[in-house]
Amino acid sequence: MALGEMDLVIQHGQVVTSSGMKKVAIGIKDGRIAALTSGPESLEARRTIDAEGKYVLPGMVDPENHLGTHRPLKDSFNSETRAAAAGGVTTWGMMQASPKLRKEYIHQPEAKDVVPFSQVMPEFIEIVESHSFVDIFLTGFITTDEQALDIPKVAREFGVTSFKYYLHMMQGPRTQAQWAGRERGGWLGFDDGTIYLGIPGIICIHPENYEIARIFEDRLKRAGRTDMAAWDERSPHFCEAGHVRTYAYYAGVTGCPLYVVHTTTQESIDEILKARAEGVKIYSETGHHYLTLSHDVWKINVPLRDEATMARLWEALRAGHIDCIGTDHVDWGMSRDQMDKGNVWETSSGFPSRVEAYLPVMLTEGVHKGKISLEKLVQVCCENPARIFGLYPKKGAIGIGSDADLVIVDLDRTAKVTQNMIYSSAGWSIWEGKELKGWPVMTILRGNVITEWPEGAPRAKITTDRPGGRYLPREPGQELYPI
Amino acid sequence: MALGEMDLVIQHGQVVTSSGMKKVAIGIKDGRIAALTSGPESLEARRTIDAEGKYVLPGMVDPENHLGTHRPLKDSFNSETRAAAAGGVTTWGMMQASPKLRKEYIHQPEAKDVVPFSQVMPEFIEIVESHSFVDIFLTGFITTDEQALDIPKVAREFGVTSFKYYLHMMQGPRTQAQWAGRERGGWLGFDDGTIYLGIPGIICIHPENYEIARIFEDRLKRAGRTDMAAWDERSPHFCEAGHVRTYAYYAGVTGCPLYVVHTTTQESIDEILKARAEGVKIYSETGHHYLTLSHDVWKINVPLRDEATMARLWEALRAGHIDCIGTDHVDWGMSRDQMDKGNVWETSSGFPSRVEAYLPVMLTEGVHKGKISLEKLVQVCCENPARIFGLYPKKGAIGIGSDADLVIVDLDRTAKVTQNMIYSSAGWSIWEGKELKGWPVMTILRGNVITEWPEGAPRAKITTDRPGGRYLPREPGQELYPI
Amino acid sequence: MALGEMDLVIQHGQVVTSSGMKKVAIGIKDGRIAALTSGPESLEARRTIDAEGKYVLPGMVDPENHLGTHRPLKDSFNSETRAAAAGGVTTWGMMQASPKLRKEYIHQPEAKDVVPFSQVMPEFIEIVESHSFVDIFLTGFITTDEQALDIPKVAREFGVTSFKYYLHMMQGPRTQAQWAGRERGGWLGFDDGTIYLGIPGIICIHPENYEIARIFEDRLKRAGRTDMAAWDERSPHFCEAGHVRTYAYYAGVTGCPLYVVHTTTQESIDEILKARAEGVKIYSETGHHYLTLSHDVWKINVPLRDEATMARLWEALRAGHIDCIGTDHVDWGMSRDQMDKGNVWETSSGFPSRVEAYLPVMLTEGVHKGKISLEKLVQVCCENPARIFGLYPKKGAIGIGSDADLVIVDLDRTAKVTQNMIYSSAGWSIWEGKELKGWPVMTILRGNVITEWPEGAPRAKITTDRPGGRYLPREPGQELYPI
Amino acid sequence: MALGEMDLVIQHGQVVTSSGMKKVAIGIKDGRIAALTSGPESLEARRTIDAEGKYVLPGMVDPENHLGTHRPLKDSFNSETRAAAAGGVTTWGMMQASPKLRKEYIHQPEAKDVVPFSQVMPEFIEIVESHSFVDIFLTGFITTDEQALDIPKVAREFGVTSFKYYLHMMQGPRTQAQWAGRERGGWLGFDDGTIYLGIPGIICIHPENYEIARIFEDRLKRAGRTDMAAWDERSPHFCEAGHVRTYAYYAGVTGCPLYVVHTTTQESIDEILKARAEGVKIYSETGHHYLTLSHDVWKINVPLRDEATMARLWEALRAGHIDCIGTDHVDWGMSRDQMDKGNVWETSSGFPSRVEAYLPVMLTEGVHKGKISLEKLVQVCCENPARIFGLYPKKGAIGIGSDADLVIVDLDRTAKVTQNMIYSSAGWSIWEGKELKGWPVMTILRGNVITEWPEGAPRAKITTDRPGGRYLPREPGQELYPI
Repeated sequence: MALGEMDLVIQHGQVVTSSGMKKVAIGIKDGRIAALTSGPESLEARRTIDAEGKYVLPGMVDPENHLGTHRPLKDSFNSETRAAAAGGVTTWGMMQASPKLRKEYIHQPEAKDVVPFSQVMPEFIEIVESHSFVDIFLTGFITTDEQALDIPKVAREFGVTSFKYYLHMMQGPRTQAQWAGRERGGWLGFDDGTIYLGIPGIICIHPENYEIARIFEDRLKRAGRTDMAAWDERSPHFCEAGHVRTYAYYAGVTGCPLYVVHTTTQESIDEILKARAEGVKIYSETGHHYLTLSHDVWKINVPLRDEATMARLWEALRAGHIDCIGTDHVDWGMSRDQMDKGNVWETSSGFPSRVEAYLPVMLTEGVHKGKISLEKLVQVCCENPARIFGLYPKKGAIGIGSDADLVIVDLDRTAKVTQNMIYSSAGWSIWEGKELKGWPVMTILRGNVITEWPEGAPRAKITTDRPGGRYLPREPGQELYPI
Repeated sequence: MALGEMDLVIQHGQVVTSSGMKKVAIGIKDGRIAALTSGPESLEARRTIDAEGKYVLPGMVDPENHLGTHRPLKDSFNSETRAAAAGGVTTWGMMQASPKLRKEYIHQPEAKDVVPFSQVMPEFIEIVESHSFVDIFLTGFITTDEQALDIPKVAREFGVTSFKYYLHMMQGPRTQAQWAGRERGGWLGFDDGTIYLGIPGIICIHPENYEIARIFEDRLKRAGRTDMAAWDERSPHFCEAGHVRTYAYYAGVTGCPLYVVHTTTQESIDEILKARAEGVKIYSETGHHYLTLSHDVWKINVPLRDEATMARLWEALRAGHIDCIGTDHVDWGMSRDQMDKGNVWETSSGFPSRVEAYLPVMLTEGVHKGKISLEKLVQVCCENPARIFGLYPKKGAIGIGSDADLVIVDLDRTAKVTQNMIYSSAGWSIWEGKELKGWPVMTILRGNVITEWPEGAPRAKITTDRPGGRYLPREPGQELYPI
Repeated sequence: MALGEMDLVIQHGQVVTSSGMKKVAIGIKDGRIAALTSGPESLEARRTIDAEGKYVLPGMVDPENHLGTHRPLKDSFNSETRAAAAGGVTTWGMMQASPKLRKEYIHQPEAKDVVPFSQVMPEFIEIVESHSFVDIFLTGFITTDEQALDIPKVAREFGVTSFKYYLHMMQGPRTQAQWAGRERGGWLGFDDGTIYLGIPGIICIHPENYEIARIFEDRLKRAGRTDMAAWDERSPHFCEAGHVRTYAYYAGVTGCPLYVVHTTTQESIDEILKARAEGVKIYSETGHHYLTLSHDVWKINVPLRDEATMARLWEALRAGHIDCIGTDHVDWGMSRDQMDKGNVWETSSGFPSRVEAYLPVMLTEGVHKGKISLEKLVQVCCENPARIFGLYPKKGAIGIGSDADLVIVDLDRTAKVTQNMIYSSAGWSIWEGKELKGWPVMTILRGNVITEWPEGAPRAKITTDRPGGRYLPREPGQELYPI
Repeated sequence: MALGEMDLVIQHGQVVTSSGMKKVAIGIKDGRIAALTSGPESLEARRTIDAEGKYVLPGMVDPENHLGTHRPLKDSFNSETRAAAAGGVTTWGMMQASPKLRKEYIHQPEAKDVVPFSQVMPEFIEIVESHSFVDIFLTGFITTDEQALDIPKVAREFGVTSFKYYLHMMQGPRTQAQWAGRERGGWLGFDDGTIYLGIPGIICIHPENYEIARIFEDRLKRAGRTDMAAWDERSPHFCEAGHVRTYAYYAGVTGCPLYVVHTTTQESIDEILKARAEGVKIYSETGHHYLTLSHDVWKINVPLRDEATMARLWEALRAGHIDCIGTDHVDWGMSRDQMDKGNVWETSSGFPSRVEAYLPVMLTEGVHKGKISLEKLVQVCCENPARIFGLYPKKGAIGIGSDADLVIVDLDRTAKVTQNMIYSSAGWSIWEGKELKGWPVMTILRGNVITEWPEGAPRAKITTDRPGGRYLPREPGQELYPI
């Protein structure tokens, strides 16, 4: 029986993987890649897309968004996953707390709302599959022992195999009865013990020692500082690197892989390398914003740094000392004026629309400026996050049997960022007015074209009304290291 | 003018320092060493003690007691400093919280009692100089930011230059208003920020990650364990070493010297060595109990360990990886039966009378068993603690101008430990029934003989009724490292 | 135009890469992989091979043989590359000195024979392309400054981009005129300076401090030891790890990637990890013999180790601390009796026929015993060596455009090793009499089936008379690290 | 019997040790310190020296001279030990090869002259005790296996317990028969194996990878460089640090203490710290010239460095990362014009008269400029070298029973260095014309005043005609670490 007709063929494009690029025709059937061929001959197909002069990458795998924090989850999915699709992201990792995964939006959760994840997963999956335009996996934000103890169940039954700890919000309620000095405590929070419980998966940490940062905050306030750059001075490199060092140690003791969510300083990288020398399984992520925006631009946790540090981060990316990029996309739903109070202490932390600028910023600042190759971009934006979070080669790869998630890139497309281009609810971008070169012009999710940006059009249009995203369960215990 | 008459001369003894031992006559005048001579000729003196066949050591400098925790401070001084004197300790470092330094005993302090140390020092000094039989210096136990901010003042005005943080009792009240999840918190506690404030002195840490220990405690309880050895399993090596690693990092960042109060595992030593390689100024203390008692003997924080670990601790002592010995002497004032509830979770933590057994245990188990030389004992029990805590060569040395604090040791004196021998309020000893070889037979404080144990007598007798101890202020900013 | 007819299709086999395995049909045209498809439908082809029940791997890439050392190079190629083909190796890295690459065989080279590689490459390439049955790349063995200075030229003109230093043969003739004490010296040898010259490529080291080994050799001889295991005691772990530590340092200084040819001890791995933490680009190779044979089996440089060490090497392979396997295949052309003199000091170092047992040993001892997965085997035996030596994805990969080098493996095929099976000139194997499970049953080089082992046949037969191997030039300056 | 009359008393001076300074009277009897007293009263003595306003230090212990290299040993002793005495050095460590220790001067030794040290020691001791004005100990320069094997004997019979290896002159004659490529070799030299033999003592290394330095030398010569600073570029930091790293590793393996003779770069210090973290016993020495002279001043092995590096060396000294100072004094016997050929490649390596400037340079540049305290100077110039080389507390200390070796320092004495002041045979100084503040004004060797510099006199005069120096045997196996 001869090779049958494909549903879709992408041909004449330069197909890029971490190992190189080559003209390859991609045949897609039933949402998966079913054929790869070289040569001038076509595969037969119901639809054929000519990518001549363009680059075909695996759909971007962004491990970090925080949809649903400030707006109801379904609304967040509706607006932000369109933005992601337009930006070339087809697999999106959500890092979120359990109260925020429910149908009914809880703005300010209370202790009673912090239930184990296995209780909310059915609801969450239903929301994802009704409202998301891209595929979604979950990294649960652990705050209680009960949640930590639930890990094996939520991993087994719902394929949640990564968990996050906000180290800047540590607190130990259960420790309080033990010592005279700690009789009362907050209803929320967690501690090293909670972390210690969480073995069967990958542990993600937001490394930032708030206890030290508060000292600097006090001093800066007393010195009358209100500018954005004060935010970097408030939380210096050792607030971040100290946590990396500490939790890398416990990761080594438990044998649990550790994922450093925001790696923004040379000192953190040094600690990561030392931990690897001790045999610790440790990965790191930075963001396109940490690579390109200086600390006077906005407030974010952990802070933006300075130019010299950005240069070190690019180097670390090239050297494999940083493994991934994550957007840390937040859906604030507020205008720039609503967010920027003119005083860093009052301004909202984190700027919106990060996912839309992600790929064009990496292409403009990274690839076109010779800081990384396009192959390296595929490695850190597609392959590595998929590997680390247990999705590879279903996601992050262009291989037979992989999901047909693709993004077609026009490296020469130039566009100035304007509010008109933005799908995110906030409607504005930190990169506004900046001309970026290199844009995604088509995004394909499991064989379906979901966005397309024709030459001359003002922005990518969403080519489907149906939110076709799926929840992605993962296998517990995948061999995580080395990627 | 010829060399005048001495107040006291000790002659014919082997005078021991870390550099060697030699027959030297020691002349004392006005409480200080005023002459050292070799040769058979005597110095003229009002009193001459013949130490033929005996060893003359500097008075022991024990950096760690906790007098006043469970009993009023003046009562603690009355009983326990006699015990110290009988044990050969002439300089005693107190590690204590500010509410416990007052004339009026506060059994269970409240938040309002936690005042800056400079407020309580006059009272404290008065109690010391009225009730202590040995000299006393203070390591303040910092629990609030206000106390941390008071450090320069208490250092300058009262010579308090060392501070301790109980890492197993961390908590951050001031952090709670900053994040939605931490709205309420305990009235007590401190955090990394508090520590970060405390630069001008030496920072002592009790390294024990209680947050992790609680997980093991839960598991051990659920497994029905109630034996003493469970206490070691509850707080494994990484609970201790993890803290050493973390706080060594911040010590490196701040340039502040760090003193690891209980060093009981190889893993902690490894972290200490790594920190030194990074240029961190870090010292470590272990206890004679950690060197000689196995985990099935009693409950204490941090826990006693096993035989293999004890062997490593002796090695580390020899190699200079551990710098000091501290007794961690606590004045419980309770009998063994009152303390041991037959269930480790109920039993009182820490056993009494440690200071009395200190020197004989080190001589019996260390010197007589060839694990350390007598010179090394002088280094780790006298010289190094005096150096590290800024008292050398006033204390810890036998040199011209040093305080005439001496302990005369009979290396051959053998005695079985009995309750009759004990001066400590508790009236019992963990070493009861054990025959120890090598005892202090005379203790001299600033030229005054304060204890004496004549051959044949059941124990050392206190030869003075007057509590002649003084408070020892220290100079801020002494160059602390290397010792 | 429809997808044309393929020259060859391999279908129904499990295609294995480091990322997973999947049933994929492989279409080959003009020696390259031209199509990959899933599904039951066939690609049209002139020849179709049904690999049902079998595994299709990239042809093995073995970075280390020493053909031509003991026999003329063309004879070595004739016999040994057949053995390689039968063993599933399609890309073979030769590590050799320049005098051994000539048409006329020089048994015992003299100083004048040690010419720069660019002088001998045309001759060498002609020999390869006339006599080798598999593809060949070269790692030149640098012994003189002139050779080191020739590196840019030989890299640019002949694509030689890797070089080896025999650290056990170090000597510095040019240093001798400089110091009174070194007036005369050998005509051969090299030194750290020679190494330092060699930047534009990857430096391979044989780490073994012969200067120390000679001391142990003397002692063992004086103690009357003549058994094989004495060879391990002669060159203990630190002879190897010491060199790794030293040359990793210089690699860090120069920024030159370093490849540790024989990694056989935990101590070497520790040094490799420490070097990585310092940002050094360092790779390591071990051999299937180091993973499976104990030190009492034979003499080899560096020595075989003990059982405990083998277990650590498997672990290191799994953890990614060791990157590659190399056979270190030598063509001795002598029988076992000729080689084994019954006295380890007289016995020839290194046993023959290693390449033939390579894959079956890795499958039997590694895959079937659960020490590594088949995917991991592909990573360390195919992908990683190809990446490190600048051949990926032309070699070591199953992707569109890659050379159609494949080995079809029958995981259930069982055979006892006998002399009848051997193609190597020596005619014997250290694994004789051992039953191995899992064998290559077909080897395909650039689309041509070159060996085939039908079920029931005594061994693989070479299915071609034409030595179709080619010399593989590489691109200088490929980004080598991380792989 | 009352304290008898002393031979000599030094009183009213500030006596300085590493622990502090204090007014103490020193009583000397039979060449040793027999009494130390405070207070205004005098000890009775045959001679009393009033050191009012001056500082009394232990005689300097300089671990490194190379007397006898270029001139007959007895001539070297005659001139240079007067210089040492005038400079305040009372204990001088000689580092020398065995052919240079004989009565008959061998200018250019041959292989046959390189005999084991135990054969030359009687002769050497006789020369020392007939011609030296200061006490001498020996660090033998090992070049052959025979010498290494002789170590236990020379240690036991002659108290030689330290040995030096010139790593820049490595060569392995005995290795040459083993490998075809190394058939001929120099008659001299040694290798790692020789080093490995040398366990029972302390191993001193001159760390400088000449094999790499030759490459830089070639390049610098081809670039036409002839200036002094080229010498630093010829042997960059990693030539030194690489050797430290390598030999620290073998020191760790053998448990043998290692002494890094010239520590001149931050990179070497980093390696020393890392080695200490691995438990290696490693000490380091720098020179007063490395602390104060820039690379454009003269040629020396290892080279002088730049200003920034000097600042780091002072810091390392303060932090205890460098333990000792050594003068590396060489007796060239040639004028400046004879030595400086105007071309660094021709100029003699090493400048003369270092010992005379040693103490004044350390006082002027170190103490008066606030880089180190006077106590620290005593630690690194007296105590530490004496401890490390097994001479403490006989030497390097001011304590009862110590040799009465003292140097009285006038911190305010100012003098410009001129050729008239110089006792060294060369008759010139690199510091000529420089005004130094702080000079030794009296040197006492075992109770005898051997030099004195009265106020107003042009230089110190030697107050004795009798060369009263003695050879200092040491005890093998003293516990060397930590100092």
